[in-house]
Amino acid sequence: MENVTIRMLAERLQLSTATISKALNNSHEISEETRQRVLALAAELNYVPNPYASSLRKKASNTIAVVIPEVADSFFAEAINGIEAVAQEKGYHVLIYLSHENSQKEQTILKDFQSGRVDGVLISVTTETTATGLEQLVRDKPVVFFDRVCEEVKAAKITTDDATAAYRATTHLIAGGCRRIGLLSASRQLSISNKRAEGFQQALLDHQLPLLPNAITYCYNESAANYQLLKTAFLENDYDGIIATTEKLSTAVYEVCEALQWRIPEDLQVIGFSNLSTARFLNPSLTTITQPAFEMGKAAATLLFRALKSNNFPLQQQQEVIPSSLIARNSTLAKDK
Amino acid sequence: MENVTIRMLAERLQLSTATISKALNNSHEISEETRQRVLALAAELNYVPNPYASSLRKKASNTIAVVIPEVADSFFAEAINGIEAVAQEKGYHVLIYLSHENSQKEQTILKDFQSGRVDGVLISVTTETTATGLEQLVRDKPVVFFDRVCEEVKAAKITTDDATAAYRATTHLIAGGCRRIGLLSASRQLSISNKRAEGFQQALLDHQLPLLPNAITYCYNESAANYQLLKTAFLENDYDGIIATTEKLSTAVYEVCEALQWRIPEDLQVIGFSNLSTARFLNPSLTTITQPAFEMGKAAATLLFRALKSNNFPLQQQQEVIPSSLIARNSTLAKDK
Repeated sequence: MENVTIRMLAERLQLSTATISKALNNSHEISEETRQRVLALAAELNYVPNPYASSLRKKASNTIAVVIPEVADSFFAEAINGIEAVAQEKGYHVLIYLSHENSQKEQTILKDFQSGRVDGVLISVTTETTATGLEQLVRDKPVVFFDRVCEEVKAAKITTDDATAAYRATTHLIAGGCRRIGLLSASRQLSISNKRAEGFQQALLDHQLPLLPNAITYCYNESAANYQLLKTAFLENDYDGIIATTEKLSTAVYEVCEALQWRIPEDLQVIGFSNLSTARFLNPSLTTITQPAFEMGKAAATLLFRALKSNNFPLQQQQEVIPSSLIARNSTLAKDK
Repeated sequence: MENVTIRMLAERLQLSTATISKALNNSHEISEETRQRVLALAAELNYVPNPYASSLRKKASNTIAVVIPEVADSFFAEAINGIEAVAQEKGYHVLIYLSHENSQKEQTILKDFQSGRVDGVLISVTTETTATGLEQLVRDKPVVFFDRVCEEVKAAKITTDDATAAYRATTHLIAGGCRRIGLLSASRQLSISNKRAEGFQQALLDHQLPLLPNAITYCYNESAANYQLLKTAFLENDYDGIIATTEKLSTAVYEVCEALQWRIPEDLQVIGFSNLSTARFLNPSLTTITQPAFEMGKAAATLLFRALKSNNFPLQQQQEVIPSSLIARNSTLAKDK
């Protein structure tokens, strides 16, 4: 079916397109009777304003973008729910773009935003992302980084207490009798990965434990490649405790332990950064660092809408850190119990 | 920073905007020397074409929409990956819209599409959706339904073998000694839910087993409400086997069994429709009907792009059914073993 246009309404009612447009926008220049005739026909023909044309005039799309590396991770799924809760209230559309952990794909997406397709952007960057391109974006549009932020860029940021969470996880393993602890990291680039590594190293230092030469394993985005990498790392380092800093890596640890016939927690105690609702039903149930995903999404969206509402809001200076929590389960049952 | 426009390029180069536009579009009316000057300045100033303006001219957005009820389900996460694999190849943007199982929100999203924001739509409907509004959408745009289709609407559809999968799940439980089998359904509306119920009932009939008065429990979208509903249903019906037809309901069964101190599989055998990567690490590992999520997303996107490429492609007549598979694990270990 053909789209109903202002021109079609004008022809049917024998009015000018300007009159139709003013009537649809409740202009005081138009008599109430005319306005009612226009609205009645628009409703009858199911007229919908063209957002491209109206965006060109109003320069606002009533749309915000969320750029995330993937959806197959419960952190992002929950964060999106937090974002949508706020956007729905404000009557905004949310468009979700996936960068698939590919910084080039991310650049293509960001480039597209310069053109005015969206009013603001919430972004959690890829494991490869550097500041290039992001600075331009922050100059062009209201932007809030959440979780995976880009340290070098001056912008609004919502994060969790990554260093503290990793410190707490490490201390929990040490208290449970672990002495050869490893950390599985998703990236050498990401500031949140580096903070988790710092918290880990600081905890070892504070407990006078040595940092093994291969204590930190930098993993791939591909599950198959990680499987082999972790198998080798586990055998070479003979870990007795491991911290998986992403949900996918937590699952990978269970796979590798199964393959090596290592028992959790007897042979290896495991903590995962994960928001999986099934964590407590795993065999054994997984001790997690649970991130405030929903709250982080909500906080990020709230900041963005404040900036969209007022040009004076100093968005780039906003920083918020929302704490994670450690939930102890059977995957870290202490050795002597 | 201000967006760079054709007008700005024209002023800087002392050329008309029409000349700039033609040069950017490689028109043969423009001399090679002028074209090079324009392209050089456009690159220097980081000029990006405005998609609204260019959409108005070309009537194409190079964007497809994916409308799904939620992302916190591995079926949809994997389906999106299948869709993106095809879209990326074609150089299209994928915008993901969430209906949050709310048919009114879905309607608002669909209404927005009439305006030309996207070239085509892939949709998996909410548990409440009826044909209203969808017929209009299918007339306006290339649309492919996947997984959760709307039977009444004549349109392209990619589904899995829902009735057969439920039949197979029921037969598997019967073979394992179950006699009081229940099915947890997500919707009275959805055709895929109804097909699963049909397959379930047919299998009972074929094995001369009675259909319990409350064999089918229609669940809510809210976890908290389901928890109470399932607890009551389990106690009243004393099931010895249960089929959870969504991933969330599978997790809910584990929760309720824990609360009731029912052992899986000794007291209750469980099969879940689920693509959870952790299914095999659950306690006990979960027998699943695993849907071909990635393939379904890929097939749906492939159909859509065929329609976008050629006006003659009879999109609405396309139907494809991709089979699911049953993966037996410990949650259905037979009674006598």
